[in-house]
Amino acid sequence: MENSYWSPIPEPCAIALFGVTGHLSRHKILPAFYDLFHRGLLPAGFALVGFARREWSREEFALWTKEQIRENCRTKFDEEVFSLLCPHFYFSKGTFDDEESFRALKGEMERASKEQGAREKMFYLSIPPASFPLVVERLKGCGLADPKDPFQKVVIEKPFGWDLESARSLNALLSSAFSSSQVFRVDHYLGKEMVQDLLPLRRENPLFGALWSSKYVDHVEISVAESAGVEGRAAYYEKAGAARDVLQNHLMQLLALTAMEEPKRGEEREKKIEVLKSCSVSDLKRTSARGQYSAGFASGKFVPGYRQEPGVDPLSFTDTFAALKIQVLTPRWEGAPFYLRTGKRLAKRSAEVALVLKQNETLPSGGNANALVFRIQPGEGVWAEFSTKAPGKEILREARMGFSYKAEFAEGCPEAYENLALDAMLGRTSMFPSEEETELSWKITDELEEFWKREPSTLEFYEAGSCGPNSAAKLMERDGRKWRKL
Amino acid sequence: MENSYWSPIPEPCAIALFGVTGHLSRHKILPAFYDLFHRGLLPAGFALVGFARREWSREEFALWTKEQIRENCRTKFDEEVFSLLCPHFYFSKGTFDDEESFRALKGEMERASKEQGAREKMFYLSIPPASFPLVVERLKGCGLADPKDPFQKVVIEKPFGWDLESARSLNALLSSAFSSSQVFRVDHYLGKEMVQDLLPLRRENPLFGALWSSKYVDHVEISVAESAGVEGRAAYYEKAGAARDVLQNHLMQLLALTAMEEPKRGEEREKKIEVLKSCSVSDLKRTSARGQYSAGFASGKFVPGYRQEPGVDPLSFTDTFAALKIQVLTPRWEGAPFYLRTGKRLAKRSAEVALVLKQNETLPSGGNANALVFRIQPGEGVWAEFSTKAPGKEILREARMGFSYKAEFAEGCPEAYENLALDAMLGRTSMFPSEEETELSWKITDELEEFWKREPSTLEFYEAGSCGPNSAAKLMERDGRKWRKL
Repeated sequence: MENSYWSPIPEPCAIALFGVTGHLSRHKILPAFYDLFHRGLLPAGFALVGFARREWSREEFALWTKEQIRENCRTKFDEEVFSLLCPHFYFSKGTFDDEESFRALKGEMERASKEQGAREKMFYLSIPPASFPLVVERLKGCGLADPKDPFQKVVIEKPFGWDLESARSLNALLSSAFSSSQVFRVDHYLGKEMVQDLLPLRRENPLFGALWSSKYVDHVEISVAESAGVEGRAAYYEKAGAARDVLQNHLMQLLALTAMEEPKRGEEREKKIEVLKSCSVSDLKRTSARGQYSAGFASGKFVPGYRQEPGVDPLSFTDTFAALKIQVLTPRWEGAPFYLRTGKRLAKRSAEVALVLKQNETLPSGGNANALVFRIQPGEGVWAEFSTKAPGKEILREARMGFSYKAEFAEGCPEAYENLALDAMLGRTSMFPSEEETELSWKITDELEEFWKREPSTLEFYEAGSCGPNSAAKLMERDGRKWRKL
Repeated sequence: MENSYWSPIPEPCAIALFGVTGHLSRHKILPAFYDLFHRGLLPAGFALVGFARREWSREEFALWTKEQIRENCRTKFDEEVFSLLCPHFYFSKGTFDDEESFRALKGEMERASKEQGAREKMFYLSIPPASFPLVVERLKGCGLADPKDPFQKVVIEKPFGWDLESARSLNALLSSAFSSSQVFRVDHYLGKEMVQDLLPLRRENPLFGALWSSKYVDHVEISVAESAGVEGRAAYYEKAGAARDVLQNHLMQLLALTAMEEPKRGEEREKKIEVLKSCSVSDLKRTSARGQYSAGFASGKFVPGYRQEPGVDPLSFTDTFAALKIQVLTPRWEGAPFYLRTGKRLAKRSAEVALVLKQNETLPSGGNANALVFRIQPGEGVWAEFSTKAPGKEILREARMGFSYKAEFAEGCPEAYENLALDAMLGRTSMFPSEEETELSWKITDELEEFWKREPSTLEFYEAGSCGPNSAAKLMERDGRKWRKL
C-alpha cells in the first residue's frame, strides 16, 4: 500500500492578523509563523499584514515583530532567517469601528498579495469575541469577505459563544461572510502533537487500534488538570467557569477524537459529529462533580482560595473544577463510559487521554495496571501500563513501557500554533471544531450548567493543591472505579 | 476476580545430585539452590546429597561446594546464609557401575530425609546421556526409583536423544522407572524469566493478548543467535549441529509456547502438544536454510572457520546455522508462518520472539515498524515497535517503547536454573518438555536432517560475524519478508 502521508507546502497566502499586538499574537501566533518559515513550511508567496491602531511604519512593525519572535520562537532565533522572512510582513493601521481603515487594509492585502504572488487570503481574528460582529461586518462591507470566494479563510479563537444560543448567533454571523469549510475555529489542544498523532497511531498500529473499543477498554478517562489558579483572567473566568472554559471545548473535542469511528481522510468532522450526537448524560447528581478551590498549598507555597483572588466575587459560585461521566451510545463504546475532568489549582499540571483496559486478575496492590495512556502535556508521549510476573515469583506486578516524542525525535515537537497555522493554511479542517461540533458540545455543557444552576449546593470546595472535590472521587467510586493518579 | 498467582514454597525434599562435580552443577545447579535458599524459597526440610567418585567426607564436600557457590552464585554470597544452608548438604561416594554405592546412596538419602524431615525425593541427573540407562537401572535395582512412588521425581538434562528413535528409547527407559509427570526434562531456555513471563503477559494484558493471532500478526520470528563459536564442544557438536542442538529443543519449545492456545492452569503441556502436532513443514528446499561458519571477524577479532576449530573434521558437513519456516495449522495462525533461526558465530548474541504485526502503510524507510518483541537475552524485556507521525509533519516514522526487567525490578532476574529447580520441586511440569513434546519436535527435526542428508549441497558457508548464510535471507525474501536485524 502506498504511503498517503506527506508534508505538503500551503498555497501562497496573504494573512490579515487582527489583534496583532495582543498577548496571543505576540506569544504564539507570530512566533508560529517564524517557526514554520524556519522549518521550510511556509509558501514562497506568503504575506502577513498586521492590523492595529499603532502609528507604525511597515519598518517599525517589522522591528517590533522581530522582538516578539526573538523572545517567543520555539526554534532557534536566527537573524538571517528573520531577514528572509521580514519582507513578507506588512502593516495596516486601523481600528475596528473605522470603515476607512478596512478599505486601507484591503488595499494593503491586495498590494501584499500582488508583491508576494498570493492568491488565498486569510483573516486571523485574534480578538475578543465582543468584537467579532463588528469586524465581520466591516470585512463584508469593504468586500474583503465573501462566502462565495473559494480563496478566503477565517481563523477565530475561542470562546465560541457562552452557551448554545450565543454559539448559534456567532455561527450565523460567520456563515453570512464565510462558508463552513472556510471557518477555522482554534481549539489549541487539537494542535498539540500528541493529539494530532492520536488518529495516526490508532490507524497505523494494531498495537493501539486493536484495543480501541469496549471489547478491551473498561472506560476512558480524559483529564486536563492545571496547577495554576485563575491568574489574571478573573473577569472572563467569573462568567465562564471550568465547564465552559475547558470541558465544552478541549475535553469534548478530545472525547470526540478518541471515541470516533476510524475516519477516511476528510471524514474526520463527520465522524466526530456522529460521536457528539451519541453522547448521553443522565442523573447528573451522581454523574457530575463541581468544585471551587479554597486556599491551600500548591507547588510548595500557600495560595489563596478562588474567592480571595483579585477580581473574583467573594461569594462567587463559579466552578474551577468540573467532572462529568458521558456514555457514548455507539456499539464501539457499549459499556465503556468516558469520564472527563478538569480543574485549576490541582496537584499537578497534566493533560492525558487514558484508555483503561480490562484486566483478568486484580493486582495485589488492588490496582488496575492495564492502560494505554496518551500524555498530551507535559512531556508528550505514549505509554502502556500492564501486569507482569514479578521476576522469579508467581505474583503480578505493575510495569510500564513508554515513548516520549522529545526523547525519540531530535527535532522536538512543534507548538500547537505551528501545527494549527499550517493546517489552516493547507485548508485541513479536521483539527478545527466545526459549527455543528461546537453546538453539540454546548448542548451537553448547557445541560450541565442548567443542572448546577438549579442545584447550587452541588458546588464543593477543594483545597488548592489537592486532586479536586470529594464528589469527583465519589462519582467514580459509584462505578467501582477510581481516577488515575494526577 | 481473585489473584491466582502466588509464591508457594516446595514440599520438603531430598535431592540426589548425580554429576555434582561437573561443569553444569558447579556453575548453575549448586548456585541455584543457594540463590533459592537466599531468597527464602527452599523448604526447611531440604537435603542435597552429592554423588561422586571423590574420596570426600561430608565436611570436605561442603567446603568444596561453598567455593563453587561463592564463585557462581547470582545473589550476594553471604557466609551466614551459607552456614545455614550447609547442614542441608550430604555426600555419598560412588560410581555409576557400582551397585554397592547406590545402596550407600539410598542409605544416605534415607538418613538425610529423616534428619531434615523430607518426604519427597528427587534424582537430578546432570550426567552424559550415555550414562542414563545405567543410572536408571541402578536406581531401580536398589529400589530407589519406582513409577508408583508419588513422592519421587527425576530431572534430566538435554540432549533428549539424537533423533526420534533414540528419543523414544530414552523415554521408554525413563517410563520404566518414573511416571510421566515425575520426569522433568530441563530445557534451560524455559527457565529464563522472559520465557516464563510469556504466558502471564499474554493472559493478563489485552495489550498483548488481543494481538495474539494472525488477525493482527503477519508472521512470528524466533531467533537464538550466538556470537560464540563451537568452543570446547566439538566432539558433541560435530554429531549434533545447530538443528539438533538448538532448533529441536529451544526453538521448538519457544514456538510451542508462543503459538499455543491460552491454557487453563495445568493444561500447558496439552496445549503445547496440540501446537506441535499442528506444525507443518513443506518444500524444504525453499523453506529451510543450513550454514556453516567460515573464518571472519567476530567481536573485533579474527576467528577461524568451523572446519579449522580443534576437534572438528576439516571436511565437516555439520550445520552451525539452521533456519526453518513452519506453518502452524491452527485457526489462530492461519496465514501467519513461524520463522525459526539459530546459529553460532553470528553478528550478535541475541534470543528473541518477535510477533511482527500487520501494518497499514509502508514506512518511508520501507520497513515494517509494527512488532511486539520479547527479548530473552541479553537484557530481558519487552518492547513494542510502532509507527508514529513525525512531530509536525505528516510522515510516518518508526518509534518504540520498551520495558526491561532489570530496570523495572530492583531484585533483578533469577537464573534459569533457579526458576527451573523451583518449578521441579513444586512439581510444575509446564516449563519442562514432556515425552510427547520431545518426540514431536524430533519428528520435525528428523525431516529436516533427512532432507539435508539427501541434499548435502544445501550447506552454505557464511562468514563468522555475519548474519548467516544467503539462503536464510532468500527464504524470507521469497515470502516478501525479511529477518529482523540481529
